[in-house]
Amino acid sequence: MDWTITESNLRSPQDIDRQGNKLLIGNGYIGYRGTLEEFTKDQKTATIVSGLYDQVGDQWREPVNLPNGGFVQVYYQGEPLHLLSSKILEHTQSLDMQHAIHERCTVFEAQDGAQITVRARRFASLAEPHLICMEYSVSADRTCAVDLLMGIDGDVWDINGPHLQEIVSSERDGILSLAARTHESSVPIAVSESIAFPAGSPKPTFSNLHEPRKSCAFRKIHTDLEQGKLTFYKFIAHFTGHDGPNPLEASRRLCQQAAVLGFEALLQAHNALWEKRWDTCDIQIEGDAPAQQALRFSMYHLLAIAPAHSSHVSIPARGLSGQVYKGAIFWDTEIFMLPFFNHTFPELARNLLLYRYHTLVGARRKAQEYGFRGAFYAWESQDEGKDACTLFNITDVFTNRPMRTYFRDKQVHISGDVAYAFWQYFITTGDTSIWTEGGAEVVFECARFFLSYMYYNLDKRRYEILDVTGPDEYHERVHNNAFTNRLVAHTLEICIQVAALLQVDYPAQYVELVDKLDFEQDLKLIAEVAQHLFLPDELAPGAIIPQFDGYFKLEDVPLKTLLAKKLNPNEYLGGGNGLATTTQILKQADVVLTLFLFNDRYPIETRSANWNFYEPRTEHGSSLSACSYSLIAAQIGKVDWAYKYFMKTATIDLTGEGKNYVGTLYIGGTHPAGNGGAWMAAVFGLCGIQGAGETLKIQPHLPSHWKKVTLSLVFRGQQLKIILTSSSVTVQPARKLTSPVSIAVGDHTVPLPQNGEISLPVG
Amino acid sequence: MDWTITESNLRSPQDIDRQGNKLLIGNGYIGYRGTLEEFTKDQKTATIVSGLYDQVGDQWREPVNLPNGGFVQVYYQGEPLHLLSSKILEHTQSLDMQHAIHERCTVFEAQDGAQITVRARRFASLAEPHLICMEYSVSADRTCAVDLLMGIDGDVWDINGPHLQEIVSSERDGILSLAARTHESSVPIAVSESIAFPAGSPKPTFSNLHEPRKSCAFRKIHTDLEQGKLTFYKFIAHFTGHDGPNPLEASRRLCQQAAVLGFEALLQAHNALWEKRWDTCDIQIEGDAPAQQALRFSMYHLLAIAPAHSSHVSIPARGLSGQVYKGAIFWDTEIFMLPFFNHTFPELARNLLLYRYHTLVGARRKAQEYGFRGAFYAWESQDEGKDACTLFNITDVFTNRPMRTYFRDKQVHISGDVAYAFWQYFITTGDTSIWTEGGAEVVFECARFFLSYMYYNLDKRRYEILDVTGPDEYHERVHNNAFTNRLVAHTLEICIQVAALLQVDYPAQYVELVDKLDFEQDLKLIAEVAQHLFLPDELAPGAIIPQFDGYFKLEDVPLKTLLAKKLNPNEYLGGGNGLATTTQILKQADVVLTLFLFNDRYPIETRSANWNFYEPRTEHGSSLSACSYSLIAAQIGKVDWAYKYFMKTATIDLTGEGKNYVGTLYIGGTHPAGNGGAWMAAVFGLCGIQGAGETLKIQPHLPSHWKKVTLSLVFRGQQLKIILTSSSVTVQPARKLTSPVSIAVGDHTVPLPQNGEISLPVG
Repeated sequence: MDWTITESNLRSPQDIDRQGNKLLIGNGYIGYRGTLEEFTKDQKTATIVSGLYDQVGDQWREPVNLPNGGFVQVYYQGEPLHLLSSKILEHTQSLDMQHAIHERCTVFEAQDGAQITVRARRFASLAEPHLICMEYSVSADRTCAVDLLMGIDGDVWDINGPHLQEIVSSERDGILSLAARTHESSVPIAVSESIAFPAGSPKPTFSNLHEPRKSCAFRKIHTDLEQGKLTFYKFIAHFTGHDGPNPLEASRRLCQQAAVLGFEALLQAHNALWEKRWDTCDIQIEGDAPAQQALRFSMYHLLAIAPAHSSHVSIPARGLSGQVYKGAIFWDTEIFMLPFFNHTFPELARNLLLYRYHTLVGARRKAQEYGFRGAFYAWESQDEGKDACTLFNITDVFTNRPMRTYFRDKQVHISGDVAYAFWQYFITTGDTSIWTEGGAEVVFECARFFLSYMYYNLDKRRYEILDVTGPDEYHERVHNNAFTNRLVAHTLEICIQVAALLQVDYPAQYVELVDKLDFEQDLKLIAEVAQHLFLPDELAPGAIIPQFDGYFKLEDVPLKTLLAKKLNPNEYLGGGNGLATTTQILKQADVVLTLFLFNDRYPIETRSANWNFYEPRTEHGSSLSACSYSLIAAQIGKVDWAYKYFMKTATIDLTGEGKNYVGTLYIGGTHPAGNGGAWMAAVFGLCGIQGAGETLKIQPHLPSHWKKVTLSLVFRGQQLKIILTSSSVTVQPARKLTSPVSIAVGDHTVPLPQNGEISLPVG
Repeated sequence: MDWTITESNLRSPQDIDRQGNKLLIGNGYIGYRGTLEEFTKDQKTATIVSGLYDQVGDQWREPVNLPNGGFVQVYYQGEPLHLLSSKILEHTQSLDMQHAIHERCTVFEAQDGAQITVRARRFASLAEPHLICMEYSVSADRTCAVDLLMGIDGDVWDINGPHLQEIVSSERDGILSLAARTHESSVPIAVSESIAFPAGSPKPTFSNLHEPRKSCAFRKIHTDLEQGKLTFYKFIAHFTGHDGPNPLEASRRLCQQAAVLGFEALLQAHNALWEKRWDTCDIQIEGDAPAQQALRFSMYHLLAIAPAHSSHVSIPARGLSGQVYKGAIFWDTEIFMLPFFNHTFPELARNLLLYRYHTLVGARRKAQEYGFRGAFYAWESQDEGKDACTLFNITDVFTNRPMRTYFRDKQVHISGDVAYAFWQYFITTGDTSIWTEGGAEVVFECARFFLSYMYYNLDKRRYEILDVTGPDEYHERVHNNAFTNRLVAHTLEICIQVAALLQVDYPAQYVELVDKLDFEQDLKLIAEVAQHLFLPDELAPGAIIPQFDGYFKLEDVPLKTLLAKKLNPNEYLGGGNGLATTTQILKQADVVLTLFLFNDRYPIETRSANWNFYEPRTEHGSSLSACSYSLIAAQIGKVDWAYKYFMKTATIDLTGEGKNYVGTLYIGGTHPAGNGGAWMAAVFGLCGIQGAGETLKIQPHLPSHWKKVTLSLVFRGQQLKIILTSSSVTVQPARKLTSPVSIAVGDHTVPLPQNGEISLPVG
């Protein structure tokens, strides 16, 4: 159970949707939904390639769903065997998280009583990101013949499509191909498929079919099943114009190469890479199998979609599970996913960060559009940093009219989130090169944006951050949101520190950058205004931090009472006339997220008082909310609450309980921010691990049924193995230390020996 | 027709409501609706006393409707004769605007065919503000007997009542009284009634009745009608605890005095005062009887409700016509009514202004409540300047939920409106004493409020006025509303000028005031920030002034298209989700009002371009809108449009076409701001009269059918008679000039001789 998610006999539309997300395979370049081989767009098959977007007319711009090369449909005496229409004697579908392999086994009973068994497994190669490999076999309980229709299905599921046009199918040297172009920018794409048979097995007869009406490239196999089974391999190669000038040729070539290497060799290489990944990041929880599974599941999903191949793409809010939320990159990545990568695969974290460097052009353009300077990052970032967020993001259920929302124009904290993320990477890894390779430019431009955004209040002698929306989107256009102001202050501080660091360590690059950005005067101003920025969270210990100016004047209504006022189950609680708008009810962690991001800054009584105040007022209308409440709960002695919120976060895609539809619009998909949040709740919260300079502070707050936690992480370039119980902490370097690390447990701070381990009691 | 409004045979509920407003009589202390003597609360009888408010529970605070002392019901053989239930042979109801007298004459046919005629007339004495006098007579076409029930009806119409409690009826020396107390502050009130008969007429028998259930003090008269008629007089006296310690005694005493003086003498004194008023302000239009009537009607209503007796009350938005809009004082008074009084009865204007001085306490409290300093005047001002405006002023028709509006907290221009009004009074009258008697303190505190409200933008090096609602309430919470910023700038300038004036002319009072307000430092700051305030209207001639930051980015939809999208006739176009909110459609004159208030500042091409741009985008959802469009239209050569908008404003209460109900809530009443707007549109707009220092500039833009306009007005203390035609302007001082005045027509500027007249051709 620990490594495998198995589901049996589920075939309602909701189940199909959930499995599609939950059992997704991917390698960062491509995500392939956990659907069955005989499925089509009606069951939301999808092959989402990272970073390729398209817009049709004035519909929403969204990722392109490539033709589905995994299609296989078995016919028995002309009768299609299909999970949803055939009699099923047995069916399991599973995901091997250790190796990112999807498997299915289905026993069909045909109308004449024949039992036909289909087995298939597939993986998106981690060694070769453009490749999906599949092994497929069919057997029967009697001598009979079957037909198989298979190939590339170009009639794909789209939310705001169709994105593929000029679809051309072809066959050459036994390789089927489907080439097409996207609508908006005419980017060429191609998917090719080759098949192979196990050595020595008889080749069946097959014929190639082109079905122009359905935009497909299929082949048909007719085979006799005599006391045995038919097994074959499919190699599916995916390329786009972003990868090179001739995707069609590239995909054909890769299919040929794959067939030469063979399925087993490809599988081995793939498995080895995944095993190495888990060596670096696995967490073992003794005493809690559901938590163990949920946490591994969370890490699996982050790893399956992390762009190892490129720093020009990042992780969308719904991962690579579809076109939902326009495939856009939100602050989710920086705030909720990045910490996992910082502490496990800093090179992946680096890619995610550099995406923001590579999209500075869009952020600068957006700042200008609104009359500001510097970098105002997209709320929903697509390629080049284009903001896909519309001004009318929600439909009013009472009038069916588009509702004006202020996500795009007022969530200015996004630029602070980006700067925060660069800094977190830097202090966790100690890697200063991030600054010279784009980080400093990003941070300078974010600070400059805030410089141009803020206002001085002459009367109160302070700078203020006005007219913003914080994480709690139910309260738009507020002044001095505690979270936003703190992030702005932090951005200004980082800017000053990075400038100082560059000046000392990289003086030539510093001068070059400051000249290029004409930043000298602004840097002086930033240092000046940083002294006078209003910070609503600078209060006496234990005081409640007001979420924004006037928050306490809002109606203090119990959440249940508020929800009971709903007239329509889908009505939006925020916006101009929302039920929550004029009350203290918040959508998601806002002040409590601040406590989490700037943990050290707040004494325990402040964290405790604010958690107690805000928890009953939080609706958790976002998957980003629970992890912050878990983390702070762990610190203030509420381990039960910490566990409850951790499990809520970690199981979101296992249970599929997130909201899947708004009206008729599908908004389901995976929740990588929840996955990252689960990791943080476990590691930072329950395990109480926190970096501080070169010291790793560890103060476990384990649930009583967690006997032992063994975890691997990377800190300041050092791979460490940490074993926690409720009474002791043991740390072992996985390899000889190359730079010093200390371990602090309670009042004890001990340098970690280069080899060997240390054990400390928990106070 | 010119002086009298007469209506016949109208008895639908809408007619009853409209007559109640239209035919109202009043003297500034009291307003008495134009209802019939037999009417009760079901027909919205009302006796509204100026400045007395009451709140019951958490309902809206509103004016107190006093017991109705005008009640008379005739019975013929036990059959009540009532306009709404009897057979009516003839009925007219009229208002003599020259003397503010309400009259009715009704011929009833009883069930046996008897024709009974009732005549009555009444006036609210201008000589004795607490008194209403009535003459009532009844006659028949045959010998018969009638009964009359009459007295004081304490069962009054309330919107958010009942406000009267502890009602006690009494009789002493033939005088009936009803005394009561208000709910909130237990303010005593009393109404007394005495009756008298013409000299020599036989007194009928009568008996006094107290009907405790109905909270009434009635008497019953039985009389024979033998070839003659019964005539009697009623004297109704009204006092409240605001007038003295014993309202009951005061009202009885006044009833006795009135009976001694007699109806005719009281009428004579009253008529003389009204005739004197009209001598000072009448306007005669030759060639346009409807315009003549509508303009006099407008002036009549302003005069009938102007508080001649007190500077502690002002004119509510619905005058004294009921409890609508909480009886509150809005900016309507300062911006739309005051100019009429400035130019006709400066002593009334002074009272209106000093109301703002007397309510500084509330304005200071409101500023503090929102974290500002100085004076933030109430959006809906009641006694002491308390703001009666709620945060939820409108009900959403789709959900029936209260809708958050930002009238109270964001229409900061109110403090600029007040300062503007003081300045206009000063420059029109030349009366410097206004500054030492409260005006300077008001202006200083308004400027101080804006000082504490504004923000400095470091990047743009300017002060900005953020997060406000301008006159166009469909666009709430905007930045740098052109109107508001200009008023703020003006307030700062006035402040500096008044300070300079005081320093020279009243140095001791200046020092005293600056000390009292601790204003020295703020005055310096005000002078400093005034140099750097962002003014969106400072553009090249002919440029379109953006109503606020980002206005031009809003959807540019034709008004008709927008209105066609309404799903409910009563849906509010503004607020969070309103149809107009995200478009360029505005509720009412905003930029065009700015052009009007600061007329001199804008070259003709700017006025023209902005009128042409904003006119098609204006919904005129407020009665305050049309007059600005009229006025600017006259200046830019669109006399037809000017006339159309003038008539729209001047006839609003004649036609009763304003909105009377929102849902089930009655919001009808008189529109004194419309009345003032009509005067401005006629005098400033069509007649083109404008003061500039000691010079009166006159540039007529008369509609072609207006042969001649003769008007009286007061300018810098001098009563002038002005005769305009399309070709010439003649000005005569009514009395010997006591200070110099020049007249400018076209390029000619001529000093007005102390006696005699000047005539100038129109260029």
